[in-house]
Amino acid sequence: MRVRVLGSAAGGGFPQWNCGCSNCNGLRAGTLKALPRTQTQVAVSADGSQWVLLNASPDLRQQLVQFPEFRPSRSRSTPVCAIILTSADIDSVMGLLHLREFEPLRIYSTASVSRVLREENTIFRVLERSSPPADWETIRFGSPVTVAQNRAAEDGLVCTAVPLGGEFPDYVRRPLAKEEAVIGLELTENGKRLFYAPTLPVYSKEVKCRVAESDLALLDGTFWSDNELVEVRGRGRTAREIGHLPLSGPGGALEELAGWARGKRVLIHINNTNPILDEESAANRAVREAGFEIAHDGMEFEL
Amino acid sequence: MRVRVLGSAAGGGFPQWNCGCSNCNGLRAGTLKALPRTQTQVAVSADGSQWVLLNASPDLRQQLVQFPEFRPSRSRSTPVCAIILTSADIDSVMGLLHLREFEPLRIYSTASVSRVLREENTIFRVLERSSPPADWETIRFGSPVTVAQNRAAEDGLVCTAVPLGGEFPDYVRRPLAKEEAVIGLELTENGKRLFYAPTLPVYSKEVKCRVAESDLALLDGTFWSDNELVEVRGRGRTAREIGHLPLSGPGGALEELAGWARGKRVLIHINNTNPILDEESAANRAVREAGFEIAHDGMEFEL
Repeated sequence: MRVRVLGSAAGGGFPQWNCGCSNCNGLRAGTLKALPRTQTQVAVSADGSQWVLLNASPDLRQQLVQFPEFRPSRSRSTPVCAIILTSADIDSVMGLLHLREFEPLRIYSTASVSRVLREENTIFRVLERSSPPADWETIRFGSPVTVAQNRAAEDGLVCTAVPLGGEFPDYVRRPLAKEEAVIGLELTENGKRLFYAPTLPVYSKEVKCRVAESDLALLDGTFWSDNELVEVRGRGRTAREIGHLPLSGPGGALEELAGWARGKRVLIHINNTNPILDEESAANRAVREAGFEIAHDGMEFEL
Repeated sequence: MRVRVLGSAAGGGFPQWNCGCSNCNGLRAGTLKALPRTQTQVAVSADGSQWVLLNASPDLRQQLVQFPEFRPSRSRSTPVCAIILTSADIDSVMGLLHLREFEPLRIYSTASVSRVLREENTIFRVLERSSPPADWETIRFGSPVTVAQNRAAEDGLVCTAVPLGGEFPDYVRRPLAKEEAVIGLELTENGKRLFYAPTLPVYSKEVKCRVAESDLALLDGTFWSDNELVEVRGRGRTAREIGHLPLSGPGGALEELAGWARGKRVLIHINNTNPILDEESAANRAVREAGFEIAHDGMEFEL
């Protein structure tokens, strides 16, 4: 299985257009040792020819154009065969609108996320323009689904949804099944296992087990501290209040995961305010010493 | 008045992720003399400190980050003070979702376009997160509105809506006032005049007069020929059928506008299939000989 990180930042990217925090200003001025990052986007392939997108980021056009393997082979075509959505957040779904160019796509999500997009938002009907129109498939807990056949073998990429807790985004109007708001994905192929959870409100026992069983876990690295966003904005909600367990501190992700991994653990969905982005910071060193890698755009793994 | 072209391509950009036409392939291979282009986005400023966006393109994050004058001056801030929408097309409105980072914004559109976004699409409620929430102002024909005060003088940037004909996008569900589907914008400041019409189904007498009276007209340059898109896709609708008068041929834009301009005429919203993108093509030479410039990302005008 190939896993390609096309984007690694949280909502807004790094730098963020309206943010003058020390990270964003330092990156713009060239005084910070850090890489710019587009918004989180991961692509997975079992056979290197068909690719499955994990979510559809706001920067997806830029990300698709910059990755040479996504070039079309025929007049109108794409190696992207499917998209799996983990939530209805703008970060996860906005990029579907980049994919409006008459390309038949398969989109996997929970029934609730599909209802938000298809019943509360007519704009996603642009995906029906293709012939055949977009095919929306429902992901159910306890029912693994084969999202892409491996053309070179009998098997394929199998996806299992993992409940994570978390809330629907604030724009959602109608009450829906809360356990379907935010899911993690376990993707297996040929005995290898990827666990994907870019938004993690809490490390449940099940989540810890999935991390421990995976060859590669891409995990929520949004915030270093609970109060980080409040300090920059001067008001607002904490990391935990918006569904992201911070990395540091008592009960933070570093502490929670200590001793729970055998494979690679990589932090992704990193907010522009997070000090781990500064490669010379103490926070950056601390997460690496705790056994984590820090995702950047263009990072690739072969499992 | 400063006018900055942040993006100049039609929907999908150039190259387009799923397009293998000779233009897109030539650009990717480096064999075509042409510039890559993001999707059409223009910014206008009366005083060089506050900027008004004309539409909100799907590539807006990338465009804002790449233009140094859009850097925030304070912890959280932006020189973007308003957005004027000319239609409800994805090309025009998707970028509003890039602007979801708690920044109070003013958005101008016709009542119908506002209804599509606010009543048929809950996702745009993310713009209500800011404090104060986004302020939606209605543009009415015959009622010019001051969209940004010039801080250095008594006057400001005044916007007049011009009916262009055209249709609502296919995702719109409810019947609406058809004349409000697609508008052109005339922006005046200190005696100077910009006319903006990136989508033009027909050159009416009024449109020709606006072009003739403007110091700068940014005009629909989507397609060279009526049949261009059908030839690449192998099916589908013609340029005229999707609301874009082609540049060439009998009744095309070059013929329609002959003799109707005193200021600069610049083609924008150029589709990836359009041969004018090839700087060595006969079509490129023909539009320049007819007195048109061809927009590219980063182009700027001072009126």
